[in-house]
Amino acid sequence: MDYRPRPEDRFSFGLWTVGWQGVNTFGAAVREPLDPVRAVHELAGLGAWGVSFHDEDLIPAGTGGAERERIVDRFTKALEETGLVVPMATTNLFSDPVFRDGGFTSNSRRVRRLALRKAAANIDLAARLGARTYVCWGGQDGAESEAGKDGRAALERLREAFDALCGYIREQGHDLRLAVEPKPNEPRGDVLLPTVGHALAFISELEHPEMVGVNPEVGHEQMAGLNVVHGVAQALWHGKLFHIDLNGQRGVKYDQDLRFGGGDLREAFFLVDLLEREGYAGPRHFDFKPPRTEDDAGVWESARACMRNYLILRERAAAFRADPEVAEALEASRVGELAEPTLGAGESLSSVLGEREADLEGLRARGYGFERLDQLATEFMLGVRG
Amino acid sequence: MDYRPRPEDRFSFGLWTVGWQGVNTFGAAVREPLDPVRAVHELAGLGAWGVSFHDEDLIPAGTGGAERERIVDRFTKALEETGLVVPMATTNLFSDPVFRDGGFTSNSRRVRRLALRKAAANIDLAARLGARTYVCWGGQDGAESEAGKDGRAALERLREAFDALCGYIREQGHDLRLAVEPKPNEPRGDVLLPTVGHALAFISELEHPEMVGVNPEVGHEQMAGLNVVHGVAQALWHGKLFHIDLNGQRGVKYDQDLRFGGGDLREAFFLVDLLEREGYAGPRHFDFKPPRTEDDAGVWESARACMRNYLILRERAAAFRADPEVAEALEASRVGELAEPTLGAGESLSSVLGEREADLEGLRARGYGFERLDQLATEFMLGVRG
Amino acid sequence: MDYRPRPEDRFSFGLWTVGWQGVNTFGAAVREPLDPVRAVHELAGLGAWGVSFHDEDLIPAGTGGAERERIVDRFTKALEETGLVVPMATTNLFSDPVFRDGGFTSNSRRVRRLALRKAAANIDLAARLGARTYVCWGGQDGAESEAGKDGRAALERLREAFDALCGYIREQGHDLRLAVEPKPNEPRGDVLLPTVGHALAFISELEHPEMVGVNPEVGHEQMAGLNVVHGVAQALWHGKLFHIDLNGQRGVKYDQDLRFGGGDLREAFFLVDLLEREGYAGPRHFDFKPPRTEDDAGVWESARACMRNYLILRERAAAFRADPEVAEALEASRVGELAEPTLGAGESLSSVLGEREADLEGLRARGYGFERLDQLATEFMLGVRG
Amino acid sequence: MDYRPRPEDRFSFGLWTVGWQGVNTFGAAVREPLDPVRAVHELAGLGAWGVSFHDEDLIPAGTGGAERERIVDRFTKALEETGLVVPMATTNLFSDPVFRDGGFTSNSRRVRRLALRKAAANIDLAARLGARTYVCWGGQDGAESEAGKDGRAALERLREAFDALCGYIREQGHDLRLAVEPKPNEPRGDVLLPTVGHALAFISELEHPEMVGVNPEVGHEQMAGLNVVHGVAQALWHGKLFHIDLNGQRGVKYDQDLRFGGGDLREAFFLVDLLEREGYAGPRHFDFKPPRTEDDAGVWESARACMRNYLILRERAAAFRADPEVAEALEASRVGELAEPTLGAGESLSSVLGEREADLEGLRARGYGFERLDQLATEFMLGVRG
Repeated sequence: MDYRPRPEDRFSFGLWTVGWQGVNTFGAAVREPLDPVRAVHELAGLGAWGVSFHDEDLIPAGTGGAERERIVDRFTKALEETGLVVPMATTNLFSDPVFRDGGFTSNSRRVRRLALRKAAANIDLAARLGARTYVCWGGQDGAESEAGKDGRAALERLREAFDALCGYIREQGHDLRLAVEPKPNEPRGDVLLPTVGHALAFISELEHPEMVGVNPEVGHEQMAGLNVVHGVAQALWHGKLFHIDLNGQRGVKYDQDLRFGGGDLREAFFLVDLLEREGYAGPRHFDFKPPRTEDDAGVWESARACMRNYLILRERAAAFRADPEVAEALEASRVGELAEPTLGAGESLSSVLGEREADLEGLRARGYGFERLDQLATEFMLGVRG
Repeated sequence: MDYRPRPEDRFSFGLWTVGWQGVNTFGAAVREPLDPVRAVHELAGLGAWGVSFHDEDLIPAGTGGAERERIVDRFTKALEETGLVVPMATTNLFSDPVFRDGGFTSNSRRVRRLALRKAAANIDLAARLGARTYVCWGGQDGAESEAGKDGRAALERLREAFDALCGYIREQGHDLRLAVEPKPNEPRGDVLLPTVGHALAFISELEHPEMVGVNPEVGHEQMAGLNVVHGVAQALWHGKLFHIDLNGQRGVKYDQDLRFGGGDLREAFFLVDLLEREGYAGPRHFDFKPPRTEDDAGVWESARACMRNYLILRERAAAFRADPEVAEALEASRVGELAEPTLGAGESLSSVLGEREADLEGLRARGYGFERLDQLATEFMLGVRG
Repeated sequence: MDYRPRPEDRFSFGLWTVGWQGVNTFGAAVREPLDPVRAVHELAGLGAWGVSFHDEDLIPAGTGGAERERIVDRFTKALEETGLVVPMATTNLFSDPVFRDGGFTSNSRRVRRLALRKAAANIDLAARLGARTYVCWGGQDGAESEAGKDGRAALERLREAFDALCGYIREQGHDLRLAVEPKPNEPRGDVLLPTVGHALAFISELEHPEMVGVNPEVGHEQMAGLNVVHGVAQALWHGKLFHIDLNGQRGVKYDQDLRFGGGDLREAFFLVDLLEREGYAGPRHFDFKPPRTEDDAGVWESARACMRNYLILRERAAAFRADPEVAEALEASRVGELAEPTLGAGESLSSVLGEREADLEGLRARGYGFERLDQLATEFMLGVRG
Repeated sequence: MDYRPRPEDRFSFGLWTVGWQGVNTFGAAVREPLDPVRAVHELAGLGAWGVSFHDEDLIPAGTGGAERERIVDRFTKALEETGLVVPMATTNLFSDPVFRDGGFTSNSRRVRRLALRKAAANIDLAARLGARTYVCWGGQDGAESEAGKDGRAALERLREAFDALCGYIREQGHDLRLAVEPKPNEPRGDVLLPTVGHALAFISELEHPEMVGVNPEVGHEQMAGLNVVHGVAQALWHGKLFHIDLNGQRGVKYDQDLRFGGGDLREAFFLVDLLEREGYAGPRHFDFKPPRTEDDAGVWESARACMRNYLILRERAAAFRADPEVAEALEASRVGELAEPTLGAGESLSSVLGEREADLEGLRARGYGFERLDQLATEFMLGVRG
């Protein structure tokens, strides 16, 4: 079987992923800075389709005028040479000390204004480079103490910010949608919009909800012990899966950003199964960090493996869904029966109130056969079947 | 200081809380069944204002006709004698083996119909007893395996169920609102609508969203490692805090249902602070389980302490908010500044794009003073100040 | 490939696993009681080698005299007919309300004495049935409040209990070793000896440490977010892996007791790899609970899958270890170099203090190639290779 | 009440705590470097008694000869001027990229030798400055993949390292003991010796176990969802609490290193209660990180609050223990009864086997009154009583 990625697989990577130098709370940089142009060429060579960036991944803070243009030109040239596209971009509103209390919801109004301007500037660049999605991760928008942050005011300001960004995009005529990226905590003790659910709810209050969706990150949901497959399913149900960040996490702990397939394999399998069955057409975007133990070769090994694992799991999920024994087991578990409306045509709750269950004891005793079904899934996952 | 509860404090308890006999996965019943009428009298004696119930807390399954009426009359008489009200009721869609795969989203259509009828029947009783809120907790609506449950279909069926219940309530002319109670897991591996956020998002898709809000439970949010104060603040921001379940949880583990004040004290303090400052007017409902180590005396001790802890924390929060040094610290932390719109009247994002921050270095260096503020809060919490 | 279990695979099951009726905090029994004799025959039919039990799994509480003998005879006959052995037994010191505050460490001295006598009685039966390991799980030995339990006194009493049990076993001449089963919480808020580490440390303080080892349970370590492979490796390093409970858990939450292979696949793979490479010769004991959604057929499906998954993963791990590319990758990652003593023969720390690293920059830059290695492991796990 | 710290309170701080500049995975430095001499003066001014350091907190890497002496002299002078002592020191075996796969258990033997030499060099300085405890935290000693690290070999190498260090200390005649600091994860996916329990077990295998104890860190145990009070109680039971790191953590998530009292208040209260009742005579060492939101003033505010919270809780715990109603409640909960041996003088398990519990039903029904007791503790904690 051939697991080589092709452009139609729509695999994309953030510049900050392969370019991560390894700085964290407990360790200094272990790798040299990575030239974005080299990143584009390497990723293209591995079979990726797209590349994404924070403003400062491409253009160092403070760079202006001619130098900025030179950088963009050089990057554009690399894209042209390789055929890579820029499906998404995002703003870095967390690294600079000025954002130590957040960007759009910093207690400081001056910081909030600065954050808005910074986002707008990169939105223009994103549009210029052809991006169709603009991700917003407000990693510093949170608090360690409930005393220091007014929760409702924070949501008000966040709404103001999204409404302002949507207004700006419309005004500029950009063909761009926003995607909110939730995260429960880290670097702040608690982060605003901690899960896919909170983000979806938030979006429903915006002036232009149709312009805003979510960008779930596998590991972020799992950091709250939540099942990412369920979260993505709900996002799809709301019609709001605008983008997705694929990576790996091993349980409730610090944000690991492992390569896709390097974390919870079971959820990875069912996530790929869900995306493919639902016909999700957006980028399969990898947002991971090659561990600090890796040198340059390990970085690319790790990137390659993200795509390869997706393709392996896609093949496995397809085989699972095509198998006759699985079809029979799904039927026995009545999985399809859940798609049937509970009330029939013309029925209302009051019209069925008098109904009595004919065989309550039988219904109580009836098993659902989920263990057989899940074991079949496990065996397809593991390649014992299929 | 007097911490005796009064009716205007609006403290209520579920019959199933003080009546819990202590059965769990690893242990048999440790206490005798509790007569609901005795529960009403005891709770009234402790200063509670209301009592809530699942259908079967009051009326054993299978009871009908005259016996059902006798039970309701006896219960009503106890309410009259004590002045206790029934602000809320809910359906037990989890204990009976028939709900082993859920109620409204069981794969079995027959079970789903049965669940709807069961809910409707108790909604009528709830309305008759004067309840204004009807809580829906779908504890068995979830899955251990992603293979056995179609996530989108489950949400479709849940929407159908809520639309049907709202339709029924409108048709019957009941003055009743629904409140969704989220929970991340247990008894199912993953539960549908795992957090306040997911529930709020779900509600936005209903036919009558105005009739449905949320019933956050302190411990349920904390089981996902989420800050319950943030979750409740978001519910309030959406205008959806219809009810609240107060209890205690000590971290990410099984559902502990400790008494209020027996879990995370810091979040308990800030939650009371939030509810009181926001003028939340609904019941302060305790949904806890007196530990299995307690006998009958311990049950009532535990119930009493729930209310007492609320009153202690309410007093402390009020003192915190009234203190001049706190006011000064809030000002220094610019907490109030977050309530100011980021853009001024007449400004749009494009109109401020050219603005430059005059003192970026100063803004970077500026501290927010949250440690001082949080320490003040800690000292009010601990009664060192105030 | 044939994944049918054989006796030499040493697969065993607790009577309480396939016999679980499904009672938990939120749900009533969903399955009929299971006759232990039927359990023996079914397990034998599936290819199991052994069966284990709590006293009351086999002999209902309060049964004495002739009836007790009749039950034991009937069970013994089933063992003889099927060839199943009893490698392990254990005491139920948790279900009965008398153990609501624990067994060996209940605050009540009368309860502690009762617990000791109960354990001793079943130790005699265990020895009679040929068991070589006696597991001690003190699930109720813990606390919800630090005020109610003196931690040091609890450890004193636990030591007294283990010393007494060891004394008793020696006195009776039983060929039996004890194995402590750690668990972090549930049913108590915090449980004594929460992890493999705490249990190993405890054992070092006993009068007969050589008679006592640990019985790690996969899910119990994972409930604390710990890597069970690391925990078992440490138990092996101490020479203390006397028994093991294999099952599945999906993250930090309530005790799920999923079938082996139904939880974290990555740790399951590396655990089997470790047990097989280390030549662990004890029982592969499954301690799981068939989910409440299953009927009788699902129970046996689930038991069958536990063994099958072990065999699949054993085959995969063996292929991984036999592969030349893996050998090369292990070498590149210097995995074997960790087995070399850091100091050479005749060296002491003071003798090497003057040594200088010749190429510090080179050493800093050197990658460890773990991503390549872990991806190879992932591909063997998934059956893409091997 | 006066909560000003005095030297006899034995409060100490790491140079790296107040000196933390705020670099983490998602953010750049927010504060200027802090001169160790200024740190000494500030801490002394706040009432601290001691200061601790990693080698590089005091002496930048690569500094040698005269410059090193100048730094040590300047530091010593500050100690003399302020009266501050150096009760503990430790080695930084994590920041330098060379330790990207660990120190004592790096797969690279050259790195392991370098780590040993680095530790020995700082041990000499620690002894020279009067330290009596030397902490070993092997934060990078762990793995993201089970494939890349041989668990047993890692423990072998760690034993070799501790034996070598103990040998070196004895050879040099230093009056110094080692203290192992456990941590479950971060910066590595899983860290070796993840909890107090694992460290205690490890120590029992050393050549000189009497020279090695543990240094539990409040937040590290809580990152595994474990109760730190229970862990410290077990360390005390083993006679191994050589040092303690006090800080705050809010649940299972990234390592927060909040100020003491800024995390779980309930466990903070019971931890102080335990340390004081047990007469723990070692340093009360604060290992925290002033949040990135703080400027220089916030750093000292935060340090001051650590000590103040300890003193507040110490006072509260003392009042709790002195209260007659508490004494009565402890008696009712039979807390003291756990200190009574289960078997009487001259009794053995076999001698009591024939005993029958006279009132089993009574024993089953008997409650333990823990809710009342815990509520009393809560009220002392909150200052409502006492």
